[in-house]
Amino acid sequence: MKHLIGINDFTIEELAELIKVGQDISLHPQNYLDKMRGKVMATLFFEPSTRTKFSFETAMLRLGGQIIGLSEVKNSSVAKGESLKDTVQTVACYTDLIVMRHPMEGAPQLATEILDVPLINAGDGGHQHPTQTLTDLLTIYKEKGRLDNLNIALVGDLKYGRTVHSLVEAITKYDNNTFFFVSPKELEMPEYVKNGIKGGCFFESRSLEEVLPQVDIVYMTRIQKERFDDLETYERLKNVYILDEEKMKLAKEDTIIMHPLPRVNEITEGVDKDKRAKYFDQAKNGMYIRMALIMKLIEEAEKDPSRPTKPEYSTIYTTCPNPKCISNHEYVERVEFHEKTAEDHAYSCEYCDRVITI
Amino acid sequence: MKHLIGINDFTIEELAELIKVGQDISLHPQNYLDKMRGKVMATLFFEPSTRTKFSFETAMLRLGGQIIGLSEVKNSSVAKGESLKDTVQTVACYTDLIVMRHPMEGAPQLATEILDVPLINAGDGGHQHPTQTLTDLLTIYKEKGRLDNLNIALVGDLKYGRTVHSLVEAITKYDNNTFFFVSPKELEMPEYVKNGIKGGCFFESRSLEEVLPQVDIVYMTRIQKERFDDLETYERLKNVYILDEEKMKLAKEDTIIMHPLPRVNEITEGVDKDKRAKYFDQAKNGMYIRMALIMKLIEEAEKDPSRPTKPEYSTIYTTCPNPKCISNHEYVERVEFHEKTAEDHAYSCEYCDRVITI
Amino acid sequence: MKHLIGINDFTIEELAELIKVGQDISLHPQNYLDKMRGKVMATLFFEPSTRTKFSFETAMLRLGGQIIGLSEVKNSSVAKGESLKDTVQTVACYTDLIVMRHPMEGAPQLATEILDVPLINAGDGGHQHPTQTLTDLLTIYKEKGRLDNLNIALVGDLKYGRTVHSLVEAITKYDNNTFFFVSPKELEMPEYVKNGIKGGCFFESRSLEEVLPQVDIVYMTRIQKERFDDLETYERLKNVYILDEEKMKLAKEDTIIMHPLPRVNEITEGVDKDKRAKYFDQAKNGMYIRMALIMKLIEEAEKDPSRPTKPEYSTIYTTCPNPKCISNHEYVERVEFHEKTAEDHAYSCEYCDRVITI
Repeated sequence: MKHLIGINDFTIEELAELIKVGQDISLHPQNYLDKMRGKVMATLFFEPSTRTKFSFETAMLRLGGQIIGLSEVKNSSVAKGESLKDTVQTVACYTDLIVMRHPMEGAPQLATEILDVPLINAGDGGHQHPTQTLTDLLTIYKEKGRLDNLNIALVGDLKYGRTVHSLVEAITKYDNNTFFFVSPKELEMPEYVKNGIKGGCFFESRSLEEVLPQVDIVYMTRIQKERFDDLETYERLKNVYILDEEKMKLAKEDTIIMHPLPRVNEITEGVDKDKRAKYFDQAKNGMYIRMALIMKLIEEAEKDPSRPTKPEYSTIYTTCPNPKCISNHEYVERVEFHEKTAEDHAYSCEYCDRVITI
Repeated sequence: MKHLIGINDFTIEELAELIKVGQDISLHPQNYLDKMRGKVMATLFFEPSTRTKFSFETAMLRLGGQIIGLSEVKNSSVAKGESLKDTVQTVACYTDLIVMRHPMEGAPQLATEILDVPLINAGDGGHQHPTQTLTDLLTIYKEKGRLDNLNIALVGDLKYGRTVHSLVEAITKYDNNTFFFVSPKELEMPEYVKNGIKGGCFFESRSLEEVLPQVDIVYMTRIQKERFDDLETYERLKNVYILDEEKMKLAKEDTIIMHPLPRVNEITEGVDKDKRAKYFDQAKNGMYIRMALIMKLIEEAEKDPSRPTKPEYSTIYTTCPNPKCISNHEYVERVEFHEKTAEDHAYSCEYCDRVITI
Repeated sequence: MKHLIGINDFTIEELAELIKVGQDISLHPQNYLDKMRGKVMATLFFEPSTRTKFSFETAMLRLGGQIIGLSEVKNSSVAKGESLKDTVQTVACYTDLIVMRHPMEGAPQLATEILDVPLINAGDGGHQHPTQTLTDLLTIYKEKGRLDNLNIALVGDLKYGRTVHSLVEAITKYDNNTFFFVSPKELEMPEYVKNGIKGGCFFESRSLEEVLPQVDIVYMTRIQKERFDDLETYERLKNVYILDEEKMKLAKEDTIIMHPLPRVNEITEGVDKDKRAKYFDQAKNGMYIRMALIMKLIEEAEKDPSRPTKPEYSTIYTTCPNPKCISNHEYVERVEFHEKTAEDHAYSCEYCDRVITI
């Protein structure tokens, strides 16, 4: 049995297989109408996210499966003092797959410790949201026919944007991709993401106009008000990169425009009619890749229902310094930190991946 | 592709076809169990309406289709500053049909500007609620065998009742119907509705007892507290027309009693047992006609998925004076007002149909 | 047609049949995938209960049926002044079965007065929750192969625990069962439950350790904070019986541990790994027995859709002294009290079963 907590849970071969199936579903949806007949999926959303929930739900329904859902924590037994593990394990008694969103980082990882059905992480705080990354990969593959040898601009909030961090981490597994990070100084791509780029190189820029003519893909993001303590900074930065019909003239004929949605005003409505605008196709691809993922995990669990075995790590035990780590909110006996590389004595939390150095 | 925003979106022939199918479904539901297999419908309710939502949802489920739903706006991306159009367009990526309820008038019309799937208006403020009218037409047709040559009493709040306005507008398309408007002075049928009556005539009365013996249909309505600024007036009027077992003796053997539900006390529980009471049958017919409608719109969209073309109007551009018009709440480039008749220089808003005179 | 309001609505033969079907479903779920195809069930939850709702919903979905649901009363027409009967009757127009949870005692019984589809009580205040009892019976039968000749410990809050009262009432119908009631003085089993024990005997104890070696079944319950006016008493009692790995050593090899869930800390997480821990199996059995029940009620309603006739009682009319009785919250013409036994002049309320003596 396999879970999906972070994008690295899949090898590059597994990603290729998923993308292939996702593409086939998008072309021949009628071949998949009954694939999950008799199966039930639970969407356990401990914080609301209508868009992601809809995408997962329609994915399962279009496979002939069924859904039950929890929209918000307040109604649940959690209010009666039940542990997260018990809530999830009870729901697992009724269902074949659990999709979980949680405000605390590492919550899905904690849940898998007792689960006998596969789990998909649909976002845990600022930590991981792997199905968004799968969505982006399918979109790029469908539009460009490849995941290597691409020039990719990432634009807007590169500091807080979980989506773009995760996309860089995934794309860098493929050969010879070049990134153009376009952001104001205050919202630059973090060092650890830049350090992780292996199979390619990157440039940083303040100017969307400068970068536009050079790239195959423009990935726009929203600058989120809730990230700023300081409203003044937000007001100054929020409109700094607006992609409009005028700027689109600078882009190549076959450049594609992506956006994880929702957008506010960083892409004007006028751009929607441009053939290069692919953000609503991207939303649709999100449904197709989730269909492929749901099938894969349920089919693997049927073949081998045993719990996944943990790889062997060099391990130390300590409390996690991340206040949003689930281990600081639910009872856990102890927290394992796994050594990442021998040289730098860095260990990462088994739940939220927060790195500490000894 | 076709949407249903207001009852006038259907010709009299299309209405006849819908009613015929609705009646057939009510007689042979088992023939329709798989008609919408593999299709997914979204119920986007930007304000709650459990009854209407249930009716649409069971309609789709009984056709073998599936549903996803949004009960209230607060959880949605709208809170993040997303436009209504983007929200609807994203949901359309996942689904084959959208059912929308919105507190602002003209919101469904605005949504159709970018939609590639059909949309049904399930109520937009005080503007339109066409599936209630379809429900009423099917009920009358099933019970009376015809939609013409009828004497119809409309009772209660005729001033604010969207349901009765729309029913008069629809029934007047058929020949030789006579309306009896029974209301207190404060809640009389508005002039513009009375002016619209063409294929028949109407009488006004203060007395339910006077009218009861003369009519084939009694359409009762609830006097709604929320319509009154002045609680005293509400208290005086709320119990003015109560249909009880005693008054039922005045009605003919084959008179039918209708009510859009919910009722409070305008029909006593004792009347429920009377064979002439048809308001719960009416609720059931609501499900059947919605089944017919869902099938029609999805099948038409499959045959011709292109967006409906606007008819040509004489048009002016201005802002809409209706504060509840969606054009005053969402960004629109400009609002078209279409000329209704050449003589009176009246133009109506493309979204909420508010009429202005130049 | 048959409803399920309380566990006594079923004869011992009907219970045996239900349990047999429930067990068969748990062994061969694939044989039941299409049994309820084309049927729609409504879950009308006037107070939230995620766990019970999920169990019913997955039960229907796994039979190939469909569901519509109301999670909380606030969105419904009840807010507009509609009666409970009208709400339920309208929902019945769209559906084949209603599952109802309500904070007021007797609310499901009131609803059945006008219903033309079967209803299942999913909990009405402190009154009845019969599907929990069915769940417990199926679990005991599957694990022990019998429902008689058992030694059963009930542990924790025996005063307020609706679940344990109902279980004793059900199990006492079978021969030669012995109960061990383990509770603090403040939370002892009420007299009326003890008086109802006919086919067996009971012992009372303060000590879990004393009782553990003697029993076949340990039924643990949560001590609920909300039952105590006095927080100090709650704090003193809440941890009085904690079942941990150490205490498990006192139990027999084939003793089973049950719990209706959610648990807080009355069973430690360490016990979960013990083969004798059956509380998550119990949750799964809840789904299977509900599948059997849904099938039975819908199939009986198809064979005979007429409303159940009331048995003849010696009856008096008065208001109910129970403030949580639905008759004190919804309009009812009059409340019948039915004589239980001729000798003691005890009469019980037709809705909430509150007993009065004349």
